[in-house]
Amino acid sequence: MGKYDALAALVLEAIKEGGYLKDLGSIPVGISNRHIHLSQADLETLFGAGYQLTKAKDLSQPRQYACKETLIIAGPKGALEKVRILGPARSESQVEILQADCFKLGITAPVRLSGDLQGTPGITLIGPKGSIHLSKGLLIAQRHIHMTLEDAKTFGVTDGEQVNIQIDGLRGGTYSNVVVRANNTSALEFHIDTEEANAMLLTSTSRITIVK
Amino acid sequence: MGKYDALAALVLEAIKEGGYLKDLGSIPVGISNRHIHLSQADLETLFGAGYQLTKAKDLSQPRQYACKETLIIAGPKGALEKVRILGPARSESQVEILQADCFKLGITAPVRLSGDLQGTPGITLIGPKGSIHLSKGLLIAQRHIHMTLEDAKTFGVTDGEQVNIQIDGLRGGTYSNVVVRANNTSALEFHIDTEEANAMLLTSTSRITIVK
Repeated sequence: MGKYDALAALVLEAIKEGGYLKDLGSIPVGISNRHIHLSQADLETLFGAGYQLTKAKDLSQPRQYACKETLIIAGPKGALEKVRILGPARSESQVEILQADCFKLGITAPVRLSGDLQGTPGITLIGPKGSIHLSKGLLIAQRHIHMTLEDAKTFGVTDGEQVNIQIDGLRGGTYSNVVVRANNTSALEFHIDTEEANAMLLTSTSRITIVK
Repeated sequence: MGKYDALAALVLEAIKEGGYLKDLGSIPVGISNRHIHLSQADLETLFGAGYQLTKAKDLSQPRQYACKETLIIAGPKGALEKVRILGPARSESQVEILQADCFKLGITAPVRLSGDLQGTPGITLIGPKGSIHLSKGLLIAQRHIHMTLEDAKTFGVTDGEQVNIQIDGLRGGTYSNVVVRANNTSALEFHIDTEEANAMLLTSTSRITIVK
């Protein structure tokens, strides 16, 4: 028996009882509803010359935020109102929707990683000062995990690798083809949309694990 | 070489090229949106004395059908319009909703098998001739597979057993805790709701497999 054994046992018990242990090796969940990223040029067409986005709430990824501004998005079969814009402005506009939205809009959108816009369909955006038809940029987001390069080492994965993730509970299961996006400007988070979250009963306080 | 080898090879090639082989051992998918089952008494409160449901479309399960009739369902936070009634009338009324609907209605519904209503929350139903507050019956359907007892033998499963199912494709994965419901009045079909279908990009022409 070492002289610190009693202390070590007590500390371990405190950690276990406090529920800290379950978080080791698990990853928090970020859930996105449909949303829009705009280029500065498109932002000005929709809201007026020189317009700047208004931050409503910081998101968990560094420098990303939800804006007060929303738009109507419209396809040949229908429209969706109050679709949130996320800031800051990007080099290209992009609209991330749910699979259910495709039926409402009457457009089939492919499952893509953010920024991979080549060959994606277009969509009409309607703002308070103007409207615009994007020739491309409509997608359903592919499931992915943001992490730092250090996180990637810890999990034994590399940027761009596809992994499976495990979800516990009555509506649990696994999601395949989850892309690791590792760089030095990300916070650790598993990103899915509301349909993917609801299908597995995940909430913003859930945690998941990687199973390779 | 047997004398029918050339013929057998040709038949096998035809089967493979025709795509018939992929369906062996796989199970068709049935996707439900939110819907309502009514008792005859509740039906008459909502639509008038002696009212009978009007069949709009047969469903894949024997004797089940979608009705022309819809209702408004309402909770403390909001309402959903045009929620479809499924027939025929049942012994107890039951409302199956999506997880997303819980947020709109302001009610937390448990994941349950159809008919397992004890302890489920209530919900208000509004029809053309009256409204009713069900004291229980609101649930999110637990994933299940309908099959005949003969199908169950073929798949090596039993009524009530929980299995995992495998979904292929870019948005694939597995769903756990899928309950086998085997009896002699069912058609083979994996039942999920629209959020579960969209999360895995399943459609009414998809097929899935059991992995125990």
